[in-house]
Amino acid sequence: MATSGGNLVRVGKKPLINYVVACVTLFNSGLDEVTVRARGRTIPKAVDTVGMLKRAFLKELIVKSVDIGSEDIRRHNGKEKSISTIEITLSKKPGD
Amino acid sequence: MATSGGNLVRVGKKPLINYVVACVTLFNSGLDEVTVRARGRTIPKAVDTVGMLKRAFLKELIVKSVDIGSEDIRRHNGKEKSISTIEITLSKKPGD
Repeated sequence: MATSGGNLVRVGKKPLINYVVACVTLFNSGLDEVTVRARGRTIPKAVDTVGMLKRAFLKELIVKSVDIGSEDIRRHNGKEKSISTIEITLSKKPGD
Repeated sequence: MATSGGNLVRVGKKPLINYVVACVTLFNSGLDEVTVRARGRTIPKAVDTVGMLKRAFLKELIVKSVDIGSEDIRRHNGKEKSISTIEITLSKKPGD
């Protein structure tokens, strides 16, 4: 499910626009597909990133797939906890 | 995209388990498909709901589709704002 390599944008604590610009940069570098990944409380920011991309930058963008899942992370106290994840794969329309 | 009728669970500010139980109840009432919907900051809770459902209650559950989008809401000051949404459609495996 995970997309390795250079077409992955990991959404974290930075401002929304940073991730939007990261996606635009990747598409402008010639990639046809970019995957936006987030987990836990940053999941809405991943969805926001896609929304802003489509509204303001790449109107022809299509959402190719959305995968939800979970992964186990080790917390500071040593306990393991399950955290939800989302992976949104974006694609330029053919013929763009 | 929206699912009208009685098979929609809207995720909001209540505890996670409430939405998990709501889904279980709908499936137990005989429905084969249930849609979990959330917007804004409650989106991770919708993903968590699906995760807990699969881990603890309905292991045979499959995620049929995940749709992301946005809708315009009017804030208290009268301004319109775009808010991200997610709709996760869950299905029992055939033959269950």
